[in-house]
Amino acid sequence: MSNPDDPTLKEATAPPTAAGDVENQTSGTGFGVSEIVTRWRREDVLKRGSLALRVFGLLFSLLAFIIMASNEHGNRKDFDKYEEYRYVLAIAILSSLYTGLQAIRQVYELWTGRQSFPRRNLALLDFFGDQIVAYLLLSSASAAVPLTNSMRENVDNIFTDSSAAAISMEFLAFLSLAFSALISGYKLSNQSYI
Amino acid sequence: MSNPDDPTLKEATAPPTAAGDVENQTSGTGFGVSEIVTRWRREDVLKRGSLALRVFGLLFSLLAFIIMASNEHGNRKDFDKYEEYRYVLAIAILSSLYTGLQAIRQVYELWTGRQSFPRRNLALLDFFGDQIVAYLLLSSASAAVPLTNSMRENVDNIFTDSSAAAISMEFLAFLSLAFSALISGYKLSNQSYI
Repeated sequence: MSNPDDPTLKEATAPPTAAGDVENQTSGTGFGVSEIVTRWRREDVLKRGSLALRVFGLLFSLLAFIIMASNEHGNRKDFDKYEEYRYVLAIAILSSLYTGLQAIRQVYELWTGRQSFPRRNLALLDFFGDQIVAYLLLSSASAAVPLTNSMRENVDNIFTDSSAAAISMEFLAFLSLAFSALISGYKLSNQSYI
Repeated sequence: MSNPDDPTLKEATAPPTAAGDVENQTSGTGFGVSEIVTRWRREDVLKRGSLALRVFGLLFSLLAFIIMASNEHGNRKDFDKYEEYRYVLAIAILSSLYTGLQAIRQVYELWTGRQSFPRRNLALLDFFGDQIVAYLLLSSASAAVPLTNSMRENVDNIFTDSSAAAISMEFLAFLSLAFSALISGYKLSNQSYI
């Protein structure tokens, strides 16, 4: 399946503590080592996948935030005249903060190879954070759709187009965080075996 | 932690196949058996918890369905004049069907002790089913809230009250299915150890 003596693989999948020693001691036994290496590799893929999904979540939340916050065209074409759009903006800010902080933490851990928080608390925080932010994003996007829809039946101007764009970005951020919650849930369930 | 010779415990936690034999053979070893019994007990609690959550989900979805479907009072006070309420009704029907079928399957398995589908496919279906239905319920409840809110600012009659009740039931069904998805996700992640 995988070659434990391959130096690039070893570097890519080695956990921070004493990885080289374990490799040298048991490289003759074959099957057991290749299983461990497979698991390290899978954990590495999960770690990078989780970071990528959160970066996408951050990107889409920021876009939703910027598009909605700049959606002021005077008269009744201001986003803050409508509570649905205020809800979209609030959740976009919350989601930007959450995904931004998580991405910074993950990049720091990947860079330095150090653990910034105890693993058990972190897995819980990761999972519930992702899942709750995903629910909030879906809820706010759903709440704003009917209003935008009924506006666009009458007129079709820059205000309704910007609203639709912000809602779409929020929906994409929801998709990113829903998949991120899948990965976090998997990590949370398997944490005693890591 | 737990006493493997306790007959009531044994009955409550025994899996269908050859449980008594294992107990009798290894009851002298102590620690290993008590660990297995602890795990059986946890799995049993999860199974019953999952069934209870789905029955609650079925109850709340059915209530949302009945309340919304009977919400016709002539003129502009018909639920099918508004696409938000039609969305609520559609998702309530879908969720009733899903939770109803799952509850029937689980009661059948608990009654006969037989497995109705291969376990791996079932765990996947369980988890994705619960999660997707939970997202749909939250989305439809969120979409219908602003309309109901703005109606109740002007008038407060039986039509708006029934809509609010149906939305609340749908939100409670969402909560049940969100917790059920937590349990299914845990089962899916740990299925190779069962």
